[in-house]
Amino acid sequence: MSTSISPLATPFPEMATIAGVRLRVARARYKDWDRTDLTFAELAPGTTVAGVLTQSKCPSPEVEWCRKALVLGEARALVVNAGNSNAFTGSRGREAVEAIAAQTAQAIGCRPSDVFVASTGVIGVPLPIDKAQAGLAAAFVAPEADWRAAAETIGTTDTYPKGASATAIVDGRTITIAAIIKGSGMIAPDMATMLGFIFTDAAVEAPFLQAALSAANARTFSCITVDGDTSTSDTVLAFATGAAGNKPLADDDSDGADAFRAALADVCRQLALLVVRDGEGATKLIEVTVEGAESDRSAHRIAMSIANSPLVKTAIAGEDANWGRVVMAVGKAGEPAERDRLAIRFGATQVAEGGLAVSGYDEAPVAAHLKGQDVEIGVDLGLGEGRATVWTCDLTHGYISINADYRS
Amino acid sequence: MSTSISPLATPFPEMATIAGVRLRVARARYKDWDRTDLTFAELAPGTTVAGVLTQSKCPSPEVEWCRKALVLGEARALVVNAGNSNAFTGSRGREAVEAIAAQTAQAIGCRPSDVFVASTGVIGVPLPIDKAQAGLAAAFVAPEADWRAAAETIGTTDTYPKGASATAIVDGRTITIAAIIKGSGMIAPDMATMLGFIFTDAAVEAPFLQAALSAANARTFSCITVDGDTSTSDTVLAFATGAAGNKPLADDDSDGADAFRAALADVCRQLALLVVRDGEGATKLIEVTVEGAESDRSAHRIAMSIANSPLVKTAIAGEDANWGRVVMAVGKAGEPAERDRLAIRFGATQVAEGGLAVSGYDEAPVAAHLKGQDVEIGVDLGLGEGRATVWTCDLTHGYISINADYRS
Repeated sequence: MSTSISPLATPFPEMATIAGVRLRVARARYKDWDRTDLTFAELAPGTTVAGVLTQSKCPSPEVEWCRKALVLGEARALVVNAGNSNAFTGSRGREAVEAIAAQTAQAIGCRPSDVFVASTGVIGVPLPIDKAQAGLAAAFVAPEADWRAAAETIGTTDTYPKGASATAIVDGRTITIAAIIKGSGMIAPDMATMLGFIFTDAAVEAPFLQAALSAANARTFSCITVDGDTSTSDTVLAFATGAAGNKPLADDDSDGADAFRAALADVCRQLALLVVRDGEGATKLIEVTVEGAESDRSAHRIAMSIANSPLVKTAIAGEDANWGRVVMAVGKAGEPAERDRLAIRFGATQVAEGGLAVSGYDEAPVAAHLKGQDVEIGVDLGLGEGRATVWTCDLTHGYISINADYRS
Repeated sequence: MSTSISPLATPFPEMATIAGVRLRVARARYKDWDRTDLTFAELAPGTTVAGVLTQSKCPSPEVEWCRKALVLGEARALVVNAGNSNAFTGSRGREAVEAIAAQTAQAIGCRPSDVFVASTGVIGVPLPIDKAQAGLAAAFVAPEADWRAAAETIGTTDTYPKGASATAIVDGRTITIAAIIKGSGMIAPDMATMLGFIFTDAAVEAPFLQAALSAANARTFSCITVDGDTSTSDTVLAFATGAAGNKPLADDDSDGADAFRAALADVCRQLALLVVRDGEGATKLIEVTVEGAESDRSAHRIAMSIANSPLVKTAIAGEDANWGRVVMAVGKAGEPAERDRLAIRFGATQVAEGGLAVSGYDEAPVAAHLKGQDVEIGVDLGLGEGRATVWTCDLTHGYISINADYRS
């Protein structure tokens, strides 16, 4: 972990253990460092799994492996490597993933396709199989680790460990969801990458788990951006051990389906915001809400156009209520918009309305709002009912220092 | 003009006058400054005009005015205001444009629709009609100005004046094209904006001039990016006075059509590169060429994905041959790509091929190439014949300083 902690960091929360999940960490020494960098989670028999993976056309072999394994919907183990993303490494990269899955399957007695693998770190260097094998062997016999240790072990350029949890009542029982995530940008130096792992003791059939995760993803992970870049390795996996003993959630009519979905979405939202809060060089968390669009999809595109605009992000860094740059970002999104219906606010203060600056608006609350760590930009297009909220961070000298002053 | 000149600046070239074009500049004092900020170009009767305008959904009233006037294809005057973009100013902004056109039309005896207007500068403040009228009145009686004076007068955050020219043989006569442009980013502080004005003494019918300009635009202005942002006011206009006396160029079969198109494209390419060279904070000009794509359109999208990636741009700023970030940008473009066919080069040195780092490639020429001011990134997708070249600049602390440390 980096020594300079993000000013937006939040403390690692208290998180309960999840029955059916055993965490262990080890030192594979993928880089020349003295820290744990291999995480092994053993999952009880019967655990179901769902996932959302990067849409990159050039994914890592780990992503391809997980995509294939997800079809079966069953999981017995998760292995996460930090320090080497194994991306863009050809057949040797694939062999490393296969070797990890085979060794783990043999150790715990399962099919290789029950083993999920994710890696993060430098690109273009095949994951060294010997280090992975030695690290795994050490992990198998290591004492159990807690969430914080696992969160620290999957991190690379993260400046603080990230976890979130929630509970829900399902079929009369309290089920728990606990999750860890790493990432400080969609992409960080050395292709750092967002990797998120969610565990629950609820019994959930794989198709329903996938539907719930995909729905939550659309409103959380797919709504954050640090620099508009997309990793070759982004991975979020959700595992349900069933140890809570509830009647398995199978569809929308299952007892507790709504509560489970809400708890899962809550955890995903917490995780997503933790990643933005560790955005490279971030000093402010920016929430962009677009309303009045022709559709939710159109609202999302306009919100992402604003959140990805370097000029908007630098204006917020400078605590400058530069709504002209917001107009620019709306205009360039290519979605339906009418200049003379547009309204823009910073925090609770309308600064533009009906295609014009609000005459004599009070600048004091706007200035006060922009000085804070949490900044809200609101846009009302005045066209329809479409709505979306996305989150990003400001663009500062820190981002340039991390990404330009660094050498691979 | 800013006092800190871009390290990539080039000297203002020698440029011939264009028969049928009279340039004058004046002080309208749109801002509290003592410099010329209003440019007036009077054009001979019979001048034809073509234009390409921003695709922003929230354009300035000037852009809307020009779009309408272009339908007629005839021009007698151009008025350019610097210091106030007049964008997002509602009906008062429209009235200012109409007033400028009316006053100019009356002074030189033409229709208001023969007067083209462009403005650049702060957004959201209606252009003050009284200052525009006084400035215009002064311009009408000012002595003739040269290209350099006009280029300086249309500039705002530009760090150096920009001009380009070319000649061609058309119908047995030498025709000349001379042009000026302003812009230091698609968008700069205060919504600076790209405004380009091209003048030729060739006789060119308006539809052919428009076709030639649109074709040149697709390979030049549409192939540059500084920060991926799109101005509300981007405008390039081409005026042909016909003073050279050639048989008017009317279609592809006209004598000299190819030569004229080539000269126009040459001027557009020079202008486009001058803008990138003045990109905010730029220390390196980056040329990105994508080959082997499924189509030219697909190649263009992938090239722009690379050129707009903050991680690629910061890597070049850091003189870091980080081809992993290029892979990432290819992958996120959403266009057909196969990881295991991808080849990447920096300058003349292949660094990745067939989905793998080139084993033991010589790092010395790559390091030397990246230390220079002109950096080439080449990508071969190995899929088809599609090809595109685009240009951008690196992303540095200078960009953040200009855009975040500034207050509106």
